[in-house]
Amino acid sequence: MTKTPSPAPQLRGPSDHDVRDQIVEAATEYFGLYGYEKTTVSDLAKAIGFSKAYIYKFFDSKQAIGEVICANRLSAIMVAVDQATADVSSASERFRRMFKVLVEAGSDLFFHDRKLYDIAATSARESWPSARAYESHLKSLVLQIVRDGRELGEFERKTPLDEAANAIYLVMRPYINPLLLQHNLVSASEATPQLSSLILRSLAP
Amino acid sequence: MTKTPSPAPQLRGPSDHDVRDQIVEAATEYFGLYGYEKTTVSDLAKAIGFSKAYIYKFFDSKQAIGEVICANRLSAIMVAVDQATADVSSASERFRRMFKVLVEAGSDLFFHDRKLYDIAATSARESWPSARAYESHLKSLVLQIVRDGRELGEFERKTPLDEAANAIYLVMRPYINPLLLQHNLVSASEATPQLSSLILRSLAP
Repeated sequence: MTKTPSPAPQLRGPSDHDVRDQIVEAATEYFGLYGYEKTTVSDLAKAIGFSKAYIYKFFDSKQAIGEVICANRLSAIMVAVDQATADVSSASERFRRMFKVLVEAGSDLFFHDRKLYDIAATSARESWPSARAYESHLKSLVLQIVRDGRELGEFERKTPLDEAANAIYLVMRPYINPLLLQHNLVSASEATPQLSSLILRSLAP
Repeated sequence: MTKTPSPAPQLRGPSDHDVRDQIVEAATEYFGLYGYEKTTVSDLAKAIGFSKAYIYKFFDSKQAIGEVICANRLSAIMVAVDQATADVSSASERFRRMFKVLVEAGSDLFFHDRKLYDIAATSARESWPSARAYESHLKSLVLQIVRDGRELGEFERKTPLDEAANAIYLVMRPYINPLLLQHNLVSASEATPQLSSLILRSLAP
């Protein structure tokens, strides 16, 4: 296929957006095969067929690429949570489903995409912005469910809202933080419903 | 000092018990300095001035010595828990103190006796009898406190006792299992009272 001139100058060649996507896609595959820690930007550049300098035009560092990959995976998990809880009116049931989906998605990443899981673990260990954003999103989800449950009369209202939500997050944390989940995988699927029940008992009016 | 003949044959030389103690004491010091994983029975034998064969007369393996060291440390922690909870009649308060002492003792071992902490972490990872005994002792402590709290009317009685106790243990586990605590140390002292409060809310009648 011969290239036809683009009608407007800004459309000449691949857009910045496309190149970024192409780099992220290739990096996802490459990191997924060889691991994030062991891969250098030079390796990536060779694999994609770009110069290292050209990659650096789009990303400051390897971490910046890892950040995007990580953010993509984490937002896919958040979408799964949203889907699982969308049509559920009971706050208790929303809580159970949220926790279940989070643990399942994390375990799934660990068992089926171990090298990408390792990027998520690195992001949690080094407190990357993507990991902090994920954590703060999860915290706000928990807060929202507790608030809704109080308004619906499902949950008690004596405990300060922040205190209740934060303590719940602490119970969930070993199973939803990628750095911690890997140490709790064996017990995760069995523990999740038991912990959900305990948390819901703690919320009973 | 010249050796005098012992009055009875069974008292000639150090008793088995003394030798065992001597080996454990030396191993505690040696492991504490150089680490359990890096130390061999030969190293230990040289350091104590015994032959390797002589040590094997008393212990089947390095792990068998590590087991005793581990069991000693873990029973010291249990004694600290017993002391902290002995005169407390409220089951809620006993629970809070137990959890606090366990987390403090674990953190203390980590920060002040890191190499011995590592033995405890190894024992948990490899599920040594000493680690299993500790875990089952802690589980029975939790069960006892929940049972007492129910009898005192402090706690609800609807949830099956085993289910309630087991879920509580799961909440505590990331902070009292040596293999997991090291990943939760930063938040441990802040998390413990919040988790205690959540657990006690879950137990409210």
